[in-house]
Amino acid sequence: MKIIRSIKKIQSLTKQLASEGTSIGLVPTMGFLHEGHLSIIKRALQKSDIVITTIFVNPTQFAQGEDLTTYPRDEKGDIQKIKDAGGQIVFIPKASDIYPNGYETYIEVESLTKILEGKSRPSHFKGVTTIVAKLFNMTRPDVVLFGLKDFQQATVLKKMTTDLNYPIKFIIAPTVREKDGLAMSSRNKYFSKSERPDALALIYALKAAKEMVKANITDCQRIQKEMQAVIKTTCKKARIEYIAFNDFNSLKPTDKVVKNTICSLAVKLYNVRLIDNMKLM
Amino acid sequence: MKIIRSIKKIQSLTKQLASEGTSIGLVPTMGFLHEGHLSIIKRALQKSDIVITTIFVNPTQFAQGEDLTTYPRDEKGDIQKIKDAGGQIVFIPKASDIYPNGYETYIEVESLTKILEGKSRPSHFKGVTTIVAKLFNMTRPDVVLFGLKDFQQATVLKKMTTDLNYPIKFIIAPTVREKDGLAMSSRNKYFSKSERPDALALIYALKAAKEMVKANITDCQRIQKEMQAVIKTTCKKARIEYIAFNDFNSLKPTDKVVKNTICSLAVKLYNVRLIDNMKLM
Repeated sequence: MKIIRSIKKIQSLTKQLASEGTSIGLVPTMGFLHEGHLSIIKRALQKSDIVITTIFVNPTQFAQGEDLTTYPRDEKGDIQKIKDAGGQIVFIPKASDIYPNGYETYIEVESLTKILEGKSRPSHFKGVTTIVAKLFNMTRPDVVLFGLKDFQQATVLKKMTTDLNYPIKFIIAPTVREKDGLAMSSRNKYFSKSERPDALALIYALKAAKEMVKANITDCQRIQKEMQAVIKTTCKKARIEYIAFNDFNSLKPTDKVVKNTICSLAVKLYNVRLIDNMKLM
Repeated sequence: MKIIRSIKKIQSLTKQLASEGTSIGLVPTMGFLHEGHLSIIKRALQKSDIVITTIFVNPTQFAQGEDLTTYPRDEKGDIQKIKDAGGQIVFIPKASDIYPNGYETYIEVESLTKILEGKSRPSHFKGVTTIVAKLFNMTRPDVVLFGLKDFQQATVLKKMTTDLNYPIKFIIAPTVREKDGLAMSSRNKYFSKSERPDALALIYALKAAKEMVKANITDCQRIQKEMQAVIKTTCKKARIEYIAFNDFNSLKPTDKVVKNTICSLAVKLYNVRLIDNMKLM
């Protein structure tokens, strides 16, 4: 497996691959890989000849006061996991190469980013779309894969990819969960053993919503109230940032669960901010 | 010569060219081509195997009240001129394909665009960087060429290209002038025969500045005053928008002409807005 740290090198390598007709799959990550990432890498291997996994904790998508400096890292472990999963190339650029002195170009998807996560984290998506476009230009993939867990991120990036005419197939991979249902996330490691059960508040709430829809209850306000109760029952200290109901593609909010309605939520538990989502119909 | 109007077609063609190892030169234009454009196309032919000239009057770089609807167009004439210059591919996309309903992704170079032209035309460069990045993604050129006449545009686009890691060589081609010195511009056709001599106010002012620097006068305020006088003498009705002195690369303003100082100006004459520039040292 090739480990590349220089932008020039990844660019000359991907140019050579393109000239040989080798198709490239890109899996951008912030490292500290879990089963969710590895399942995406394996999926990418089915879609392209060669998979480039990138590891970069992107500073521009963290706001001041967020967990940039404490974000968990394990480069050695990540490299081993990618190798074991069958990945052929790992790209690990330096922050000072990605954002050199005087850097000042940013990409924004203007309206999809104003709601949900974007409302809680105003500059977050601008950082995400910018770094992903830069990775597109460095690696020129034929296909790119993102996880459904960050569904708004996937939707925003898909919109960016289409709007800017990148000739890249965009695949959203399903969320991988722990045995008990908690969505895999690098941030799960922040919980102590005694706190960990409370993290299930999100999936319990989403399952309750799904059950209500199965029982033909489609009023979002009613479902939301029930979800709030479930969360509070699981963990008294939980602070709910939002529970939202939107169309999966347009992100248009809805009062009633219809086809393609996705319910998403963000909850702060013991200073750890978790997100999760589920398609309700 | 190939004339392509579909985004899909240009993308499959450029993908094929890349896989064959053919290098691509890109010359983005808004059409109504003059000798300035043609000299850029000819230069591009020396730098790459195949040259794609694009013709697209980009709506997002015009503000309300600017000359989008009246901007001169001559598709037939343009195609003939490109053919005569040796261009192999012309790409003429439709505005509704470039900006379909719901389009909402924009690219901004944040500080270089706040001065000079960007001050006079606040949303202009956001439109320019966005369309050029889109054209980059559609055509994947090895080299791109822009004219020096719009020097801030060239500087901003070069910065965007570098910041976003496009693997594209960026060339700035010298300004081509009419015999009397007027910088070639599609907007020159707006002048009536009697108004046309007044359009020389800009080059007269720039030449006066150059002469002063040759005589070791490097104080920008003094040079600016002289330039204002020259402009007013040439055309009483001229409205000067700005006369500025900046570093060519960083666009940093300067009080004293030093190496790489470029003087640029924008002047409104009979409702036609002209720009020009000259390196003074």
